[in-house]
Amino acid sequence: MSRYFSSRFSGLTPYVPGEQPQDQQYIKLNTNESPYPPSPAAVEWATAHTRSLNLYSDPECRELREALGQSLGVEPDQIMVTNGSDEVLNFAFMAFCDNENPAVFPDITYGFYPVFAQVNRVPYVEIPLKEDFTVDTDALCAAEGTIFLANPNAPTGILLGLDEIARMAASRPDRVVVVDEAYIDFGGESALKLLDRYDNLLITRTFSKLRALAGGRLGYGVGSPALMQDLNTLRYSTNPYNVNSMTLSMGLAILRDKETVLHNRDSIIRVREETEAELKKRGFLVLPSSTNFVFARTPAMDGASLYQALKAKGVLVRHFTPERIRDFNRITIGTREQMQAFFRVLDEILGGRS
Amino acid sequence: MSRYFSSRFSGLTPYVPGEQPQDQQYIKLNTNESPYPPSPAAVEWATAHTRSLNLYSDPECRELREALGQSLGVEPDQIMVTNGSDEVLNFAFMAFCDNENPAVFPDITYGFYPVFAQVNRVPYVEIPLKEDFTVDTDALCAAEGTIFLANPNAPTGILLGLDEIARMAASRPDRVVVVDEAYIDFGGESALKLLDRYDNLLITRTFSKLRALAGGRLGYGVGSPALMQDLNTLRYSTNPYNVNSMTLSMGLAILRDKETVLHNRDSIIRVREETEAELKKRGFLVLPSSTNFVFARTPAMDGASLYQALKAKGVLVRHFTPERIRDFNRITIGTREQMQAFFRVLDEILGGRS
Repeated sequence: MSRYFSSRFSGLTPYVPGEQPQDQQYIKLNTNESPYPPSPAAVEWATAHTRSLNLYSDPECRELREALGQSLGVEPDQIMVTNGSDEVLNFAFMAFCDNENPAVFPDITYGFYPVFAQVNRVPYVEIPLKEDFTVDTDALCAAEGTIFLANPNAPTGILLGLDEIARMAASRPDRVVVVDEAYIDFGGESALKLLDRYDNLLITRTFSKLRALAGGRLGYGVGSPALMQDLNTLRYSTNPYNVNSMTLSMGLAILRDKETVLHNRDSIIRVREETEAELKKRGFLVLPSSTNFVFARTPAMDGASLYQALKAKGVLVRHFTPERIRDFNRITIGTREQMQAFFRVLDEILGGRS
Repeated sequence: MSRYFSSRFSGLTPYVPGEQPQDQQYIKLNTNESPYPPSPAAVEWATAHTRSLNLYSDPECRELREALGQSLGVEPDQIMVTNGSDEVLNFAFMAFCDNENPAVFPDITYGFYPVFAQVNRVPYVEIPLKEDFTVDTDALCAAEGTIFLANPNAPTGILLGLDEIARMAASRPDRVVVVDEAYIDFGGESALKLLDRYDNLLITRTFSKLRALAGGRLGYGVGSPALMQDLNTLRYSTNPYNVNSMTLSMGLAILRDKETVLHNRDSIIRVREETEAELKKRGFLVLPSSTNFVFARTPAMDGASLYQALKAKGVLVRHFTPERIRDFNRITIGTREQMQAFFRVLDEILGGRS
């Protein structure tokens, strides 16, 4: 910290992203990326647009919002496109939280939420997950403030039903309910169909997971035109050209290539089911996943030791330190070959202990 | 505005970017883009990296920071890479301004500065430019707070000498002086060489102008490692993967292809000089430009009317409404052919009035 840093941020602890080794020596199952490349059409479209990169990208992202609107069954003015979904989440903390409206979210969820609250200097309340790691809808409904709900939740992978989301939206119409659907494609039902009923719902989405564009940075928010207007006020006050032209083109191409997306989704779900079965065979407790990762623990060793042992043998998974989940590891679903390699390494580690 | 928008932002007026017509029907001389495409190598490198877009980009931007460090003669830990330079400017307002440290900048400068101050809810002081539209260094030195200085300034195009920057940095060592060098390549001397002497200097740069990557979104800040640490605390608290992988690759390629950059710089400076001469021939007052645009007014008609007349005939320039500059227009330097077309249209307009 320099002596010039505003004291407003003296207590701020930044988010720690999962390790991103640049040498690619690891089997990388730690940041929930797709094991497949993006649609080949996306690559072509991005390349076709590189020649006009001397011009600014469209700050209104018109073409992509129109295509997204058609794909999702909403109007373009219900969509705002961002540089990854972290950006729209940050704007939502800015726009819809303040001293009178704290942020409210589960105690075990996306680790960025408390950081977004801190950097925007808004208070936040953490609602404990229930014993079985499911979200406590009653407690969230009862709490005052803007709800942030990852659905399915991370790192648990557990899905909440739409009726529960509707209950939250209805509980206090004077607050916004943000549903972070980063993982919705892997088995969940989207809250999009609730938008007609609740003008206080904001849904955030990303192209980083199923759509294999983590390195391209593309996310968006969906909600009422009035909510989008608020978010755009902040976007145009910080970085109006937030999404680059190549990424806008790739988004369009990916939306058209439904086949690749569905094929990849089916592969990931199939490999996830195999992974769950194999882990259970080895005595793991595996939480029911509706995502592209599994959250699991073994009675054979503690979570941090397993994480370290895997890393020493070239496999990266994600370990979290909070008390309730420190015996778990979050394992991204890779290709079938990657998961076979994972299990070979796992068996070496567990076998060495028996 | 929705009823959910935090009252903190009720007075916020977002920045209005220059028009970005998507149909490309205009001769576009309004947002200071390069008239040339980026280096062909950049296009190749971006394409080569599209296959690994399923993986997140490197949040540390290591390779690019190392290459930039070598190119600029500074250490990689003196650099932070951002999604365009607006992003690092916004972080600087966040990090180095608060109620005790207002932002200080000229009254006529990059129009985003007051917006950055407002969105971060920090006070700001505007120091009038002198009669001849040059920066009032004495008044800036005397003012308390964090200085934001576009050098060369926009939209005037006027360059301030390094000795003046040094005076500002020395005037109050307890404040940061931010030098926004978006246009430094077109004839100015960079404040980089002052970094050894002043640890309170922060320099911001962009690939959007000379390096022809406006649509790719690449900027960076340079300063002491301690200042970079502060800015990174904010970056990791909002959007750690802020720069996409294709853009990181393109940045590397552009740094290597010095020849294209220098060739384009020379062309733009040559066409700028021709443009200034042609405008003066037609009775315009043209401020001395060290940028890729000229700021000029004609006694023949007011600025808004000229802007409208040009637009009606297919040429977009930028007009600003503040009293002191409303008779000017800012004209981006295009290719020689674009400027010839501009003068044909201009002569139709001015000829029609005589």
